[in-house]
Amino acid sequence: MATLLVKNGRVITADSDGVCDILVEGETIAAIGKNLPMQADETIDATGKLVMPGGIDPHVHLDMPFMGTFSSDTHETGTRAALHGGTTTVIDFVLQKQGHSLREALTEWQGRATGTAVGDYSFHMAVTDFNPSTKEEIKDMVAEGITSFKTFMAYKGALMIDDAQMVGLMQEVKKHGGLVTAHATNGDLIDTLIAQHRAAGQLTPRYHYLSQPEVTEAEASGRFCDIANYTGVNAYIVHLTCEGALNQVRRATERNQRVFVETCIQYLLLDASVYQDEFEGAKWVMSPPLREKKDQQTLWAGINQGLVQVVGTDHCPFMWEQKLMGKDDFSRIPNGHPAIEHRMELLFSEGVMKGRISPQKFVEVTSTNAAKIFGMFPRKGTISIGADADLVLIDPKKKHVISAATHHMNVDYSAYEGHELTGKITTVLLRGQVAVDAGETKVARGYGQFIRRGPVKF
Amino acid sequence: MATLLVKNGRVITADSDGVCDILVEGETIAAIGKNLPMQADETIDATGKLVMPGGIDPHVHLDMPFMGTFSSDTHETGTRAALHGGTTTVIDFVLQKQGHSLREALTEWQGRATGTAVGDYSFHMAVTDFNPSTKEEIKDMVAEGITSFKTFMAYKGALMIDDAQMVGLMQEVKKHGGLVTAHATNGDLIDTLIAQHRAAGQLTPRYHYLSQPEVTEAEASGRFCDIANYTGVNAYIVHLTCEGALNQVRRATERNQRVFVETCIQYLLLDASVYQDEFEGAKWVMSPPLREKKDQQTLWAGINQGLVQVVGTDHCPFMWEQKLMGKDDFSRIPNGHPAIEHRMELLFSEGVMKGRISPQKFVEVTSTNAAKIFGMFPRKGTISIGADADLVLIDPKKKHVISAATHHMNVDYSAYEGHELTGKITTVLLRGQVAVDAGETKVARGYGQFIRRGPVKF
Amino acid sequence: MATLLVKNGRVITADSDGVCDILVEGETIAAIGKNLPMQADETIDATGKLVMPGGIDPHVHLDMPFMGTFSSDTHETGTRAALHGGTTTVIDFVLQKQGHSLREALTEWQGRATGTAVGDYSFHMAVTDFNPSTKEEIKDMVAEGITSFKTFMAYKGALMIDDAQMVGLMQEVKKHGGLVTAHATNGDLIDTLIAQHRAAGQLTPRYHYLSQPEVTEAEASGRFCDIANYTGVNAYIVHLTCEGALNQVRRATERNQRVFVETCIQYLLLDASVYQDEFEGAKWVMSPPLREKKDQQTLWAGINQGLVQVVGTDHCPFMWEQKLMGKDDFSRIPNGHPAIEHRMELLFSEGVMKGRISPQKFVEVTSTNAAKIFGMFPRKGTISIGADADLVLIDPKKKHVISAATHHMNVDYSAYEGHELTGKITTVLLRGQVAVDAGETKVARGYGQFIRRGPVKF
Amino acid sequence: MATLLVKNGRVITADSDGVCDILVEGETIAAIGKNLPMQADETIDATGKLVMPGGIDPHVHLDMPFMGTFSSDTHETGTRAALHGGTTTVIDFVLQKQGHSLREALTEWQGRATGTAVGDYSFHMAVTDFNPSTKEEIKDMVAEGITSFKTFMAYKGALMIDDAQMVGLMQEVKKHGGLVTAHATNGDLIDTLIAQHRAAGQLTPRYHYLSQPEVTEAEASGRFCDIANYTGVNAYIVHLTCEGALNQVRRATERNQRVFVETCIQYLLLDASVYQDEFEGAKWVMSPPLREKKDQQTLWAGINQGLVQVVGTDHCPFMWEQKLMGKDDFSRIPNGHPAIEHRMELLFSEGVMKGRISPQKFVEVTSTNAAKIFGMFPRKGTISIGADADLVLIDPKKKHVISAATHHMNVDYSAYEGHELTGKITTVLLRGQVAVDAGETKVARGYGQFIRRGPVKF
Repeated sequence: MATLLVKNGRVITADSDGVCDILVEGETIAAIGKNLPMQADETIDATGKLVMPGGIDPHVHLDMPFMGTFSSDTHETGTRAALHGGTTTVIDFVLQKQGHSLREALTEWQGRATGTAVGDYSFHMAVTDFNPSTKEEIKDMVAEGITSFKTFMAYKGALMIDDAQMVGLMQEVKKHGGLVTAHATNGDLIDTLIAQHRAAGQLTPRYHYLSQPEVTEAEASGRFCDIANYTGVNAYIVHLTCEGALNQVRRATERNQRVFVETCIQYLLLDASVYQDEFEGAKWVMSPPLREKKDQQTLWAGINQGLVQVVGTDHCPFMWEQKLMGKDDFSRIPNGHPAIEHRMELLFSEGVMKGRISPQKFVEVTSTNAAKIFGMFPRKGTISIGADADLVLIDPKKKHVISAATHHMNVDYSAYEGHELTGKITTVLLRGQVAVDAGETKVARGYGQFIRRGPVKF
Repeated sequence: MATLLVKNGRVITADSDGVCDILVEGETIAAIGKNLPMQADETIDATGKLVMPGGIDPHVHLDMPFMGTFSSDTHETGTRAALHGGTTTVIDFVLQKQGHSLREALTEWQGRATGTAVGDYSFHMAVTDFNPSTKEEIKDMVAEGITSFKTFMAYKGALMIDDAQMVGLMQEVKKHGGLVTAHATNGDLIDTLIAQHRAAGQLTPRYHYLSQPEVTEAEASGRFCDIANYTGVNAYIVHLTCEGALNQVRRATERNQRVFVETCIQYLLLDASVYQDEFEGAKWVMSPPLREKKDQQTLWAGINQGLVQVVGTDHCPFMWEQKLMGKDDFSRIPNGHPAIEHRMELLFSEGVMKGRISPQKFVEVTSTNAAKIFGMFPRKGTISIGADADLVLIDPKKKHVISAATHHMNVDYSAYEGHELTGKITTVLLRGQVAVDAGETKVARGYGQFIRRGPVKF
Repeated sequence: MATLLVKNGRVITADSDGVCDILVEGETIAAIGKNLPMQADETIDATGKLVMPGGIDPHVHLDMPFMGTFSSDTHETGTRAALHGGTTTVIDFVLQKQGHSLREALTEWQGRATGTAVGDYSFHMAVTDFNPSTKEEIKDMVAEGITSFKTFMAYKGALMIDDAQMVGLMQEVKKHGGLVTAHATNGDLIDTLIAQHRAAGQLTPRYHYLSQPEVTEAEASGRFCDIANYTGVNAYIVHLTCEGALNQVRRATERNQRVFVETCIQYLLLDASVYQDEFEGAKWVMSPPLREKKDQQTLWAGINQGLVQVVGTDHCPFMWEQKLMGKDDFSRIPNGHPAIEHRMELLFSEGVMKGRISPQKFVEVTSTNAAKIFGMFPRKGTISIGADADLVLIDPKKKHVISAATHHMNVDYSAYEGHELTGKITTVLLRGQVAVDAGETKVARGYGQFIRRGPVKF
Repeated sequence: MATLLVKNGRVITADSDGVCDILVEGETIAAIGKNLPMQADETIDATGKLVMPGGIDPHVHLDMPFMGTFSSDTHETGTRAALHGGTTTVIDFVLQKQGHSLREALTEWQGRATGTAVGDYSFHMAVTDFNPSTKEEIKDMVAEGITSFKTFMAYKGALMIDDAQMVGLMQEVKKHGGLVTAHATNGDLIDTLIAQHRAAGQLTPRYHYLSQPEVTEAEASGRFCDIANYTGVNAYIVHLTCEGALNQVRRATERNQRVFVETCIQYLLLDASVYQDEFEGAKWVMSPPLREKKDQQTLWAGINQGLVQVVGTDHCPFMWEQKLMGKDDFSRIPNGHPAIEHRMELLFSEGVMKGRISPQKFVEVTSTNAAKIFGMFPRKGTISIGADADLVLIDPKKKHVISAATHHMNVDYSAYEGHELTGKITTVLLRGQVAVDAGETKVARGYGQFIRRGPVKF
């Protein structure tokens, strides 16, 4: 077995912080120690660097058919860009087509990802049509390592399920020890507001934002918690953005309920001031939209309170030409923005370096918690013996600037163009292989593996 | 330097879980690995055992003058018993005497602990009289590694400070990066109810319980959160017992506040049904008293919600003869119960083995979180390179029964007599030394060191 | 104009309490005074009696097509029975048929009520299909004095509207100064639970109850408040039954929202213990079902807190033979119970005579508040000059027993059979006419008038 | 008996609104009717006027020793000014002197008020020292018609009681059917902040405001609710000013508690922008201080939610020379502002005429609710037969301007100088006598009577 030694880095995990060496044998971590005496085939000098667990982004959409087009990153380009940003594992969403089976969708997604992904990946199964026949498939999915089931409370007619399907799905998933996640916004309200804005000729990106006010998310988040509490299922809210929604989760704690919460990097750092009448704002047209400063404060606080466990991206990039589909009508702008590559550096710079969160908390929300919640722990999410040797080396003081000119995502603009960051990822290992080093990709298309997942272990 | 190898244990920390070896050099952990090739002076075979970080009990009262007597465990007997139960570090409370300086009290406590403690220890400073002169001492205490300041909102005339002192203390502690903790119960209410019961001739242990209803704790917890929020200080509630109090913390999250919460093992496992008119109930006369089943549920939920970070003991044992001081008047029963030895085995058996919490959560609440909150991380609270080699080996399936006949605490009854547990601690290492093995103490009086602490790092 | 003098009663309104005379001229109150010197055509001696404003029951279903049958009280029998119980005005629900216009339904209901009602009545318009065409009708309805619009969040496919319709309706109603009311339960959840119980062969009345757990009402109440708050419309929840739902309203107060709440007499007095496997429980099969003792406490408290403004009945009686439609399947039991006749005497006996509410609060919740909220004040809901002379005389100490053998509702069982009450209504005036006296009806079919209503005036 | 007829006014009470006549015989209302045929000794033409119940201001401080001086309005000048503003009854605070009896204080206050008051008055008893001897006096006070007991949670050493006294007082007052009210601010915090500002040389009026942040009131309000809930006593918070405090009351509703809330006119209309470094701000130095716009919104909402039942004044005027005592130190500025005369006109103009509250709500919060809560109903607070003929005639469209040059209070500045109001009180009757007409006082010093009060009747 090939061996590799990462020497003298300051190794930081959710529960450790110290300078030492890491010995990798094959794909996994074999030893950690001060001045390890073992020899290795290859040695990386990590002096002056932080060494952290490879990031897990549990919320990405690669090569996804949506709004009449496809998100522009394939499993290849998307996971490659992720690696450049220190994210070694992503969880992509398989979308059941209404009227069709889960299996059919899974097969389709497997077709796109297998043999093409550069980084490791897994799948959530988005159940968009829960019925007696879908119900039968849940058990199989869990058996195949797809243990989390996504629901959409919005996008009626395409992805949305109603509360009857929700309760049925939750009961079934609970039976098999899985997790139900939700895009928790009230689709009916949003559709109404979109229609009203369109009818009034209010068609610029600003109206995308105005069509999804805080209440649409707060209401649905509360409803999701209520139904989850009734069924007792493990529950997780994806891309939570605002005070109103987090307060629903906070209040649910009073009835002894635990609901996991993911926010995304953009909701921590950007705000709704980008939405104006200029079409430029289309770069950040996503759902839910960016919110206010007070919501950013809520989310940072939520992380430190332990109530927001995960920071993902909802990476769903579209080329500018695709965005232009909505030039004359915000409702036709493909929703989503590119972030898979910069989540970790952004959070490191804005979170750790600015003192908002500790390095340990950084590891928790970028990696460990997702591994635990989504059933990949202890294989992923940590630097420990037997775990996959997914490592990120960060030069904590190096400054750099984000730009579409230099990023690796397959999209022709950056949502963070010109952002200056402190802390640069220099080397990334995935299952023992140097995947990225000094800006170069070192592993090939198809290196990424599908990660089978188990139950929540938190 | 002496070396020691712990082989083949299933090493569990807050973020790892895998079978491996641990190499100890001197007092710290030098390497962790699968089949480590290094030789060592001594080898412990941990096959079939769990290996976890040494426990930290941040709430103990050793040799404490209280209610006209002293708690019966000295720093020697108390820390020795702690070691037998896998707790390698305790934080004891220095009690300022009203009208006197912090320094005076510290000197007194140092006098009792230095050279006698068997296990590692640190001190909280209980500020019972905050005034211009005390204020000046805060900075020095922090500089000496005493970074947490305890307040009593009860025991008027002895330990209690009023809100004016509270806000002043918080402002000063914040300035120096420390933490303020509170015994959060409303002393005025309690004193009134005690007086009323006594006046009515209601003198049995049951009235101890009835003198401290839930509101006395809920109110004070809310008040403590309010003042802490105003000052912005790091805040921590000790021995929180009930739904009403935890709900105050939960509601405080809505204003983006984070307040750390400790509960104690007894509040998770025992309930108020022990308080009757028989004097037997005196065994569990402590403050706050045991609560109801619904409160136990709240506390278990709080742990899993991440809102209760620490499980301590409030260990404060008294011999039966001491308890008898209150034979005819509950208000004279010395408050406190012995638990320092059994916290970890009780929580392991009732928590992990019964599936209420994960092994990782067990490590967090018994060790890692306390280390982070109280500024001992990463030296304590984890199994990582450079950390103190404080290790606990557990035989997870071994059943045993708690009894005063076999425990090591200096007290002649057990609060858990006859409790059958699953999971036995077999070996304990403290700073690289085998401290306990197969029921024998292997380190001597005075082996325990004072641990200087730093700021919160969570 | 005919004159009538009610002499020497203890006149109690929401803001008065004193012995005096009331002079009625024609249909309205002309004078109130101590020993009024005026002569009158007729004199009623009210010595020893309480004289209160005629009751308003804003929640009744008369002659309503439902579940394949019709509620058994017509506008004639229902309003007559109401008069016997001191309720001089009722508000009935016109149900739009999905796919049809509001007008069509109104015409149908007018056809049933006009010329047949014995007591005064008005209509809420239940909008079961909000669409561009319905939208146009709202303004007309308001203009015709139908200012309150009922929504159903349950009964999908028959009465339920989705949230898109809800927000649209609220916006339109707000524009015209009306009020939106809701049957706030989550129909999707209920339908699922019903289907599951049926599939499991769980078919007795107990499963009716188990199909509508508290969460179904709490969730929908919160959602209704959320959407109402977003639109700013005047909002009112009908037949609120439980702590979970009222807590949603209480929490909504924290964002400065006011939502009116109606409970019904049965939720204050009866509980779910009536639902067993015997079919007898069908007598109380209604939606929402009866709840627990703790919910009764919540509702009484809500009244005294001013957060529950109205006590109605949701009167919807069915003959036992009709109830038997669901003998083998609870889901086919026509929902509803008879109460129109006994609301006031029940509340007087259980509320006023047992000291739970003051006489003034009694008047508020049985009459004044409904008049104000539903735009009939000051014509209805009070005893004041110019108001309709709708008066109820109560002998406060007289005991009597409720029985189907003696009640006036067109239904062959009583939901309160054998209940012994203190306080008997002896005489009722409606618009100056003695409508009921000593158990005899004194006004004829068709005496009741349609009451045009205006905006909320609270 | 003298008779008086008020003809053709639009009579508005909490539950009526109609044009009619009111016949007064002696001191009470004898008849109300449309074109009453009775003759009277005197007739007042109220055509075009509103006729409302005389106002009750339950929060005034007349001739009160405070901060080394006396509030500048005596019972004579204060009640006379009150009458000019339509307030016919005031409740003044008797202040027990610590170490002395309640009786002693009552005797002192009676000495000042008896024979001097022009308008009716009653007393709250402020218990500033609850001890075994005070405890014995509670029963007597209730028997003498002093049924409400004020507590101060601030002003340590002068007026403040601690929580032990609070719980004892509540228990005793509950036993006798009384009501406990509170100045709910945390005195310890405030004293600390005052001392800190003084120590820092921050001495202008702005620092008065900064010494009493929202938390000081929110905390104490929550604590007061908690203790009241534990004892079950009727509870009332005086001069509540802010969102934080009202939210405590709102949350208390979730445990089925009812706490009455009074705000004062200044908190609805003025805000903290008046506090600057100029000494001018001393005009509004009162405790609690004025708050923010968001708090005003909360209070208006609270009124419409039924959670704020009373609008008082906390009238406590000081001459400018007295205010100058604090010229160089905000903490020496006598606290209080003059408002007794303008409460009703201000609330009418800003509340009713601007559509924020209905005329009925206006009557409730200025008169009826106070009468009910403080045990004066139905003698006071309403226009009904047998009630005291306390009437206020308002010309609803007449504009006027407030000025110290024209007001009747014994104070040489106005807190509302230049405020233009719509709606002028033209005539005021007190117990059947024209007390004020066209700006002239018509009753003499000593006309005012002490009003004995009973239990809460709400």
